[in-house]
Amino acid sequence: MLKKFTISTNRRDEMIDITQEVSSYVRETGVQNGVVYVYCPHTTAGITINENADPDVKHDMLMRLDEVYPWTHDKYRHAEGNSASHLKASTVGTSQPVLIEDGELILGTWQGIYFCEFDGPRSRKCVLKVMEG
Amino acid sequence: MLKKFTISTNRRDEMIDITQEVSSYVRETGVQNGVVYVYCPHTTAGITINENADPDVKHDMLMRLDEVYPWTHDKYRHAEGNSASHLKASTVGTSQPVLIEDGELILGTWQGIYFCEFDGPRSRKCVLKVMEG
Amino acid sequence: MLKKFTISTNRRDEMIDITQEVSSYVRETGVQNGVVYVYCPHTTAGITINENADPDVKHDMLMRLDEVYPWTHDKYRHAEGNSASHLKASTVGTSQPVLIEDGELILGTWQGIYFCEFDGPRSRKCVLKVMEG
Repeated sequence: MLKKFTISTNRRDEMIDITQEVSSYVRETGVQNGVVYVYCPHTTAGITINENADPDVKHDMLMRLDEVYPWTHDKYRHAEGNSASHLKASTVGTSQPVLIEDGELILGTWQGIYFCEFDGPRSRKCVLKVMEG
Repeated sequence: MLKKFTISTNRRDEMIDITQEVSSYVRETGVQNGVVYVYCPHTTAGITINENADPDVKHDMLMRLDEVYPWTHDKYRHAEGNSASHLKASTVGTSQPVLIEDGELILGTWQGIYFCEFDGPRSRKCVLKVMEG
Repeated sequence: MLKKFTISTNRRDEMIDITQEVSSYVRETGVQNGVVYVYCPHTTAGITINENADPDVKHDMLMRLDEVYPWTHDKYRHAEGNSASHLKASTVGTSQPVLIEDGELILGTWQGIYFCEFDGPRSRKCVLKVMEG
Protein backbone atom coordinates (compact mmCIF):
# COMPACT_ATOMS: atom_id res chain seq x y z
CA MET A 1 0.00 0.00 0.00
CA LEU A 2 2.35 2.61 -1.36
CA LYS A 3 1.66 5.58 -3.60
CA LYS A 4 4.01 8.02 -5.26
CA PHE A 5 2.81 11.25 -6.78
CA THR A 6 4.27 14.42 -8.23
CA ILE A 7 3.91 17.99 -7.00
CA SER A 8 4.76 21.06 -9.03
CA THR A 9 5.90 23.92 -6.84
CA ASN A 10 5.72 27.55 -7.84
CA ARG A 11 8.03 29.54 -5.60
CA ARG A 12 11.30 29.19 -3.73
CA ASP A 13 9.48 28.76 -0.41
CA GLU A 14 5.97 27.36 -0.43
CA MET A 15 3.65 25.26 1.73
CA ILE A 16 1.28 23.17 -0.40
CA ASP A 17 -1.74 21.54 1.26
CA ILE A 18 -1.79 17.82 0.36
CA THR A 19 -4.37 16.72 2.94
CA GLN A 20 -6.87 15.71 0.25
CA GLU A 21 -4.31 13.52 -1.56
CA VAL A 22 -3.51 11.76 1.71
CA SER A 23 -7.08 11.23 2.87
CA SER A 24 -8.21 10.09 -0.59
CA TYR A 25 -5.44 7.50 -0.73
CA VAL A 26 -6.29 6.20 2.73
CA ARG A 27 -9.95 5.74 1.68
CA GLU A 28 -8.80 4.02 -1.52
CA THR A 29 -6.82 1.45 0.48
CA GLY A 30 -9.88 0.70 2.61
CA VAL A 31 -7.72 0.54 5.73
CA GLN A 32 -9.82 1.29 8.81
CA ASN A 33 -7.13 1.58 11.46
CA GLY A 34 -3.43 2.25 11.19
CA VAL A 35 -1.05 4.98 10.18
CA VAL A 36 -0.15 6.71 6.93
CA TYR A 37 3.36 8.01 6.38
CA VAL A 38 3.74 11.12 4.27
CA TYR A 39 7.33 11.06 3.07
CA CYS A 40 9.43 13.53 1.06
CA PRO A 41 12.34 11.96 -0.89
CA HIS A 42 14.17 15.30 -1.22
CA THR A 43 16.71 17.14 0.95
CA THR A 44 15.56 20.69 0.29
CA ALA A 45 11.88 20.11 0.97
CA GLY A 46 9.93 18.54 3.81
CA ILE A 47 6.56 17.71 5.32
CA THR A 48 4.79 19.43 8.19
CA ILE A 49 1.34 19.52 9.76
CA ASN A 50 0.04 22.99 10.55
CA GLU A 51 -2.88 25.41 10.22
CA ASN A 52 -5.20 25.05 7.21
CA ALA A 53 -7.40 28.11 7.76
CA ASP A 54 -5.63 31.49 7.54
CA PRO A 55 -3.05 31.57 4.70
CA ASP A 56 -1.18 34.24 6.65
CA VAL A 57 0.13 31.49 8.93
CA LYS A 58 2.01 29.99 5.98
CA HIS A 59 3.35 33.44 5.07
CA ASP A 60 4.57 34.09 8.60
CA MET A 61 6.15 30.64 8.97
CA LEU A 62 8.04 30.86 5.67
CA MET A 63 9.06 34.48 6.34
CA ARG A 64 10.50 33.77 9.78
CA LEU A 65 12.17 30.48 8.76
CA ASP A 66 13.91 32.49 6.06
CA GLU A 67 15.24 34.90 8.66
CA VAL A 68 16.36 32.12 11.01
CA TYR A 69 18.01 30.23 8.14
CA PRO A 70 19.00 33.03 5.74
CA TRP A 71 19.59 32.30 2.07
CA THR A 72 22.95 34.06 2.07
CA HIS A 73 25.48 33.88 4.89
CA ASP A 74 29.18 34.68 4.76
CA LYS A 75 30.03 31.40 6.51
CA TYR A 76 28.07 29.07 4.20
CA ARG A 77 30.46 26.92 2.09
CA HIS A 78 28.03 24.77 0.05
CA ALA A 79 28.64 25.81 -3.56
CA GLU A 80 25.07 25.11 -4.68
CA GLY A 81 23.99 28.01 -2.48
CA ASN A 82 20.93 26.38 -0.94
CA SER A 83 22.14 25.55 2.58
CA ALA A 84 19.15 27.40 4.00
CA SER A 85 16.85 24.91 2.22
CA HIS A 86 18.65 21.97 3.83
CA LEU A 87 18.33 23.58 7.26
CA LYS A 88 14.63 24.27 6.82
CA ALA A 89 14.03 20.70 5.60
CA SER A 90 15.65 19.18 8.69
CA THR A 91 13.75 21.60 10.92
CA VAL A 92 10.24 20.77 9.73
CA GLY A 93 11.15 17.15 9.01
CA THR A 94 11.36 14.76 6.06
CA SER A 95 8.11 12.99 6.89
CA GLN A 96 5.04 12.98 9.10
CA PRO A 97 2.93 10.05 10.26
CA VAL A 98 -0.82 10.59 10.48
CA LEU A 99 -3.05 8.22 12.44
CA ILE A 100 -6.07 6.49 10.86
CA GLU A 101 -9.26 5.71 12.80
CA ASP A 102 -12.41 4.22 11.23
CA GLY A 103 -10.98 4.84 7.77
CA GLU A 104 -10.36 8.54 8.32
CA LEU A 105 -7.29 10.61 9.20
CA ILE A 106 -7.09 11.78 12.80
CA LEU A 107 -6.48 15.48 12.28
CA GLY A 108 -7.45 18.36 14.53
CA THR A 109 -9.97 20.91 13.22
CA TRP A 110 -7.24 23.26 12.03
CA GLN A 111 -4.66 20.72 10.92
CA GLY A 112 -3.62 20.32 7.30
CA ILE A 113 -0.74 18.29 5.88
CA TYR A 114 1.78 20.39 3.95
CA PHE A 115 4.46 19.63 1.42
CA CYS A 116 7.08 22.29 2.18
CA GLU A 117 9.12 23.52 -0.78
CA PHE A 118 12.31 25.30 0.27
CA ASP A 119 14.22 25.44 -3.02
CA GLY A 120 11.65 25.78 -5.78
CA PRO A 121 10.10 26.06 -8.13
CA ARG A 122 10.63 22.39 -8.99
CA SER A 123 8.85 19.17 -9.84
CA ARG A 124 8.84 17.13 -6.61
CA LYS A 125 7.82 13.66 -5.53
CA CYS A 126 5.88 12.62 -2.46
CA VAL A 127 5.40 9.09 -1.11
CA LEU A 128 2.44 7.80 0.90
CA LYS A 129 2.48 4.49 2.71
CA VAL A 130 -0.33 2.99 4.77
CA MET A 131 0.38 0.50 7.56
CA GLU A 132 -2.59 -1.37 9.02
CA GLY A 133 -2.86 -2.11 12.71
CA MET B 1 -5.50 0.35 20.27
CA LEU B 2 -6.07 4.07 20.42
CA LYS B 3 -6.43 6.38 23.39
CA LYS B 4 -7.33 10.04 23.59
CA PHE B 5 -6.80 12.07 26.71
CA THR B 6 -6.97 15.69 27.81
CA ILE B 7 -4.18 17.90 29.13
CA SER B 8 -4.72 21.19 30.93
CA THR B 9 -1.85 23.56 30.34
CA ASN B 10 -0.98 26.42 32.65
CA ARG B 11 1.21 28.89 30.78
CA ARG B 12 1.74 30.22 27.26
CA ASP B 13 4.85 28.06 26.81
CA GLU B 14 5.13 24.84 28.76
CA MET B 15 6.61 21.35 28.44
CA ILE B 16 4.49 18.76 30.27
CA ASP B 17 5.96 15.32 30.93
CA ILE B 18 3.50 12.67 29.69
CA THR B 19 5.87 9.69 29.82
CA GLN B 20 3.79 7.96 32.50
CA GLU B 21 0.57 8.27 30.49
CA VAL B 22 2.30 6.74 27.49
CA SER B 23 4.00 3.86 29.32
CA SER B 24 0.85 3.06 31.31
CA TYR B 25 -1.19 2.84 28.13
CA VAL B 26 1.36 0.58 26.47
CA ARG B 27 1.23 -1.78 29.47
CA GLU B 28 -2.57 -1.69 29.37
CA THR B 29 -2.60 -2.85 25.75
CA GLY B 30 -0.32 -5.77 26.62
CA VAL B 31 1.67 -5.23 23.44
CA GLN B 32 5.18 -6.62 23.83
CA ASN B 33 6.84 -5.31 20.67
CA GLY B 34 5.92 -2.47 18.39
CA VAL B 35 5.70 1.28 18.39
CA VAL B 36 3.50 3.84 20.11
CA TYR B 37 2.69 7.11 18.39
CA VAL B 38 2.24 10.16 20.57
CA TYR B 39 0.22 12.60 18.47
CA CYS B 40 -0.90 16.19 19.04
CA PRO B 41 -4.06 17.22 17.11
CA HIS B 42 -3.29 20.95 17.46
CA THR B 43 -1.30 23.43 15.38
CA THR B 44 0.10 25.56 18.22
CA ALA B 45 1.39 22.70 20.34
CA GLY B 46 3.61 19.70 19.66
CA ILE B 47 5.39 16.65 21.04
CA THR B 48 9.10 16.25 21.74
CA ILE B 49 11.39 13.85 23.58
CA ASN B 50 14.00 15.50 25.77
CA GLU B 51 15.61 15.61 29.21
CA ASN B 52 13.52 14.55 32.22
CA ALA B 53 15.98 15.40 34.99
CA ASP B 54 16.87 19.09 35.35
CA PRO B 55 13.82 21.37 34.86
CA ASP B 56 16.22 24.12 33.78
CA VAL B 57 16.52 22.35 30.42
CA LYS B 58 12.83 23.02 29.78
CA HIS B 59 13.29 26.65 30.83
CA ASP B 60 16.24 27.13 28.50
CA MET B 61 14.54 25.41 25.57
CA LEU B 62 11.35 27.45 25.86
CA MET B 63 13.31 30.68 26.47
CA ARG B 64 15.50 30.28 23.40
CA LEU B 65 12.68 29.05 21.14
CA ASP B 66 10.85 32.22 22.09
CA GLU B 67 13.81 34.31 20.98
CA VAL B 68 14.21 32.39 17.70
CA TYR B 69 10.47 32.59 17.00
CA PRO B 70 9.46 35.84 18.74
CA TRP B 71 5.85 36.45 19.76
CA THR B 72 5.78 39.86 18.09
CA HIS B 73 7.39 40.67 14.76
CA ASP B 74 6.66 43.57 12.46
CA LYS B 75 6.40 41.25 9.46
CA TYR B 76 3.88 38.78 10.94
CA ARG B 77 0.47 39.06 9.21
CA HIS B 78 -1.60 36.40 11.00
CA ALA B 79 -4.34 38.33 12.81
CA GLU B 80 -4.64 35.84 15.65
CA GLY B 81 -1.15 36.89 16.72
CA ASN B 82 0.23 33.43 17.48
CA SER B 83 2.48 32.81 14.50
CA ALA B 84 5.34 32.04 16.87
CA SER B 85 3.32 29.13 18.28
CA HIS B 86 2.84 27.66 14.80
CA LEU B 87 6.57 27.94 14.11
CA LYS B 88 7.52 26.27 17.38
CA ALA B 89 4.99 23.47 16.76
CA SER B 90 6.48 22.65 13.36
CA THR B 91 9.99 22.83 14.79
CA VAL B 92 9.55 20.29 17.59
CA GLY B 93 7.02 18.27 15.58
CA THR B 94 3.38 17.24 15.75
CA SER B 95 4.14 13.70 16.92
CA GLN B 96 6.83 11.32 18.12
CA PRO B 97 7.03 7.55 17.76
CA VAL B 98 8.46 5.59 20.69
CA LEU B 99 9.63 2.00 20.26
CA ILE B 100 8.32 -0.81 22.47
CA GLU B 101 10.46 -3.80 23.53
CA ASP B 102 9.27 -6.51 25.94
CA GLY B 103 6.25 -4.42 26.85
CA GLU B 104 8.25 -1.34 27.84
CA LEU B 105 9.13 1.92 26.08
CA ILE B 106 12.66 2.13 24.73
CA LEU B 107 13.77 5.43 26.25
CA GLY B 108 17.26 6.50 27.22
CA THR B 109 17.99 7.18 30.89
CA TRP B 110 17.34 10.90 30.56
CA GLN B 111 14.54 10.80 28.00
CA GLY B 112 11.02 11.93 28.81
CA ILE B 113 8.10 12.48 26.42
CA TYR B 114 6.74 16.03 26.48
CA PHE B 115 3.53 17.66 25.38
CA CYS B 116 4.70 21.13 24.32
CA GLU B 117 2.22 23.95 24.80
CA PHE B 118 3.09 27.04 22.77
CA ASP B 119 -0.16 29.04 23.05
CA GLY B 120 -1.63 28.29 26.47
CA PRO B 121 -3.10 28.07 28.85
CA ARG B 122 -5.65 25.80 27.18
CA SER B 123 -7.36 22.45 27.42
CA ARG B 124 -5.57 20.20 24.91
CA LYS B 125 -6.00 16.72 23.52
CA CYS B 126 -3.35 14.08 22.98
CA VAL B 127 -3.69 10.82 21.03
CA LEU B 128 -1.79 7.57 21.65
CA LYS B 129 -1.80 4.70 19.19
CA VAL B 130 0.00 1.38 19.56
CA MET B 131 1.04 -0.66 16.52
CA GLU B 132 2.19 -4.22 17.14
CA GLY B 133 5.07 -5.73 15.22
CA MET C 1 13.27 -7.11 14.60
CA LEU C 2 15.29 -4.70 16.70
CA LYS C 3 18.95 -3.83 16.57
CA LYS C 4 21.05 -1.65 18.84
CA PHE C 5 24.49 -0.47 17.87
CA THR C 6 27.13 1.92 19.13
CA ILE C 7 28.51 5.02 17.46
CA SER C 8 31.69 6.81 18.50
CA THR C 9 31.51 10.50 17.77
CA ASN C 10 34.55 12.71 17.33
CA ARG C 11 33.51 16.31 17.77
CA ARG C 12 31.01 18.41 19.70
CA ASP C 13 28.80 18.80 16.62
CA GLU C 14 28.88 16.12 13.97
CA MET C 15 26.62 14.46 11.40
CA ILE C 16 27.54 10.79 10.89
CA ASP C 17 26.12 8.95 7.88
CA ILE C 18 24.50 5.70 9.07
CA THR C 19 22.61 4.88 5.87
CA GLN C 20 24.65 1.71 5.29
CA GLU C 21 23.95 0.39 8.80
CA VAL C 22 20.23 0.95 8.27
CA SER C 23 20.00 -0.56 4.79
CA SER C 24 22.18 -3.56 5.77
CA TYR C 25 19.93 -4.28 8.73
CA VAL C 26 16.80 -4.07 6.61
CA ARG C 27 18.28 -6.59 4.14
CA GLU C 28 19.28 -8.84 7.04
CA THR C 29 15.67 -8.96 8.28
CA GLY C 30 14.45 -9.94 4.82
CA VAL C 31 11.47 -7.62 5.15
CA GLN C 32 10.21 -6.60 1.72
CA ASN C 33 7.70 -3.91 2.65
CA GLY C 34 7.33 -1.81 5.76
CA VAL C 35 9.12 0.89 7.67
CA VAL C 36 12.35 1.09 9.65
CA TYR C 37 12.59 3.44 12.60
CA VAL C 38 15.98 4.98 13.29
CA TYR C 39 15.87 6.05 16.93
CA CYS C 40 18.31 7.94 19.15
CA PRO C 41 17.99 7.20 22.89
CA HIS C 42 19.81 10.41 23.89
CA THR C 43 18.65 13.97 24.59
CA THR C 44 21.66 15.82 23.17
CA ALA C 45 21.79 13.99 19.85
CA GLY C 46 19.23 13.22 17.15
CA ILE C 47 18.52 11.74 13.74
CA THR C 48 17.94 13.57 10.47
CA ILE C 49 17.76 12.78 6.77
CA ASN C 50 19.68 15.17 4.53
CA GLU C 51 22.20 15.50 1.70
CA ASN C 52 24.80 12.77 1.30
CA ALA C 53 26.88 14.33 -1.49
CA ASP C 54 28.66 17.59 -0.61
CA PRO C 55 30.12 17.54 2.94
CA ASP C 56 29.82 21.33 2.99
CA VAL C 57 26.08 20.90 3.57
CA LYS C 58 26.84 19.27 6.94
CA HIS C 59 29.27 22.07 7.75
CA ASP C 60 26.74 24.76 6.94
CA MET C 61 23.92 23.04 8.83
CA LEU C 62 25.97 22.55 11.99
CA MET C 63 27.43 26.07 11.74
CA ARG C 64 24.06 27.79 11.43
CA LEU C 65 22.34 25.60 14.05
CA ASP C 66 25.11 26.66 16.41
CA GLU C 67 24.33 30.30 15.74
CA VAL C 68 20.57 29.81 16.14
CA TYR C 69 21.07 27.82 19.35
CA PRO C 70 24.32 29.28 20.76
CA TRP C 71 26.43 27.29 23.22
CA THR C 72 26.61 30.17 25.67
CA HIS C 73 23.73 32.50 26.48
CA ASP C 74 23.32 34.77 29.49
CA LYS C 75 19.77 33.48 30.07
CA TYR C 76 20.58 29.74 30.05
CA ARG C 77 20.17 28.24 33.54
CA HIS C 78 21.00 24.55 32.96
CA ALA C 79 24.15 23.92 35.01
CA GLU C 80 25.49 21.24 32.70
CA GLY C 81 25.94 23.96 30.08
CA ASN C 82 24.62 22.02 27.08
CA SER C 83 21.19 23.58 26.58
CA ALA C 84 22.08 24.27 22.95
CA SER C 85 22.49 20.51 22.41
CA HIS C 86 19.00 19.85 23.78
CA LEU C 87 17.54 22.52 21.49
CA LYS C 88 19.28 21.13 18.42
CA ALA C 89 18.15 17.58 19.28
CA SER C 90 14.49 18.62 19.47
CA THR C 91 14.85 20.61 16.25
CA VAL C 92 16.17 17.80 14.04
CA GLY C 93 14.22 15.15 15.96
CA THR C 94 14.86 12.07 18.07
CA SER C 95 14.02 9.63 15.30
CA GLN C 96 13.21 9.23 11.63
CA PRO C 97 11.11 6.58 9.90
CA VAL C 98 12.31 5.36 6.51
CA LEU C 99 9.97 3.46 4.17
CA ILE C 100 10.89 0.03 2.77
CA GLU C 101 9.84 -1.14 -0.71
CA ASP C 102 10.93 -4.45 -2.28
CA GLY C 103 13.48 -4.92 0.48
CA GLU C 104 15.20 -1.57 -0.06
CA LEU C 105 15.00 1.82 1.66
CA ILE C 106 12.99 4.45 -0.19
CA LEU C 107 15.50 7.29 -0.21
CA GLY C 108 15.89 10.05 -2.76
CA THR C 109 19.10 10.24 -4.79
CA TRP C 110 20.70 12.72 -2.41
CA GLN C 111 19.25 11.47 0.86
CA GLY C 112 21.40 9.97 3.59
CA ILE C 113 20.42 9.10 7.16
CA TYR C 114 22.46 10.94 9.78
CA PHE C 115 23.16 10.43 13.45
CA CYS C 116 23.53 14.01 14.73
CA GLU C 117 25.92 14.50 17.64
CA PHE C 118 25.38 17.81 19.43
CA ASP C 119 27.40 17.25 22.63
CA GLY C 120 30.34 15.05 21.72
CA PRO C 121 32.68 13.45 21.52
CA ARG C 122 30.90 10.53 23.17
CA SER C 123 30.01 6.89 22.75
CA ARG C 124 26.37 6.82 21.61
CA LYS C 125 23.71 4.23 20.98
CA CYS C 126 21.32 3.98 18.07
CA VAL C 127 18.26 1.72 17.75
CA LEU C 128 16.78 0.31 14.53
CA LYS C 129 13.37 -1.33 14.40
CA VAL C 130 11.69 -2.82 11.35
CA MET C 131 7.90 -3.06 11.12
CA GLU C 132 6.48 -5.17 8.32
CA GLY C 133 3.37 -4.15 6.46
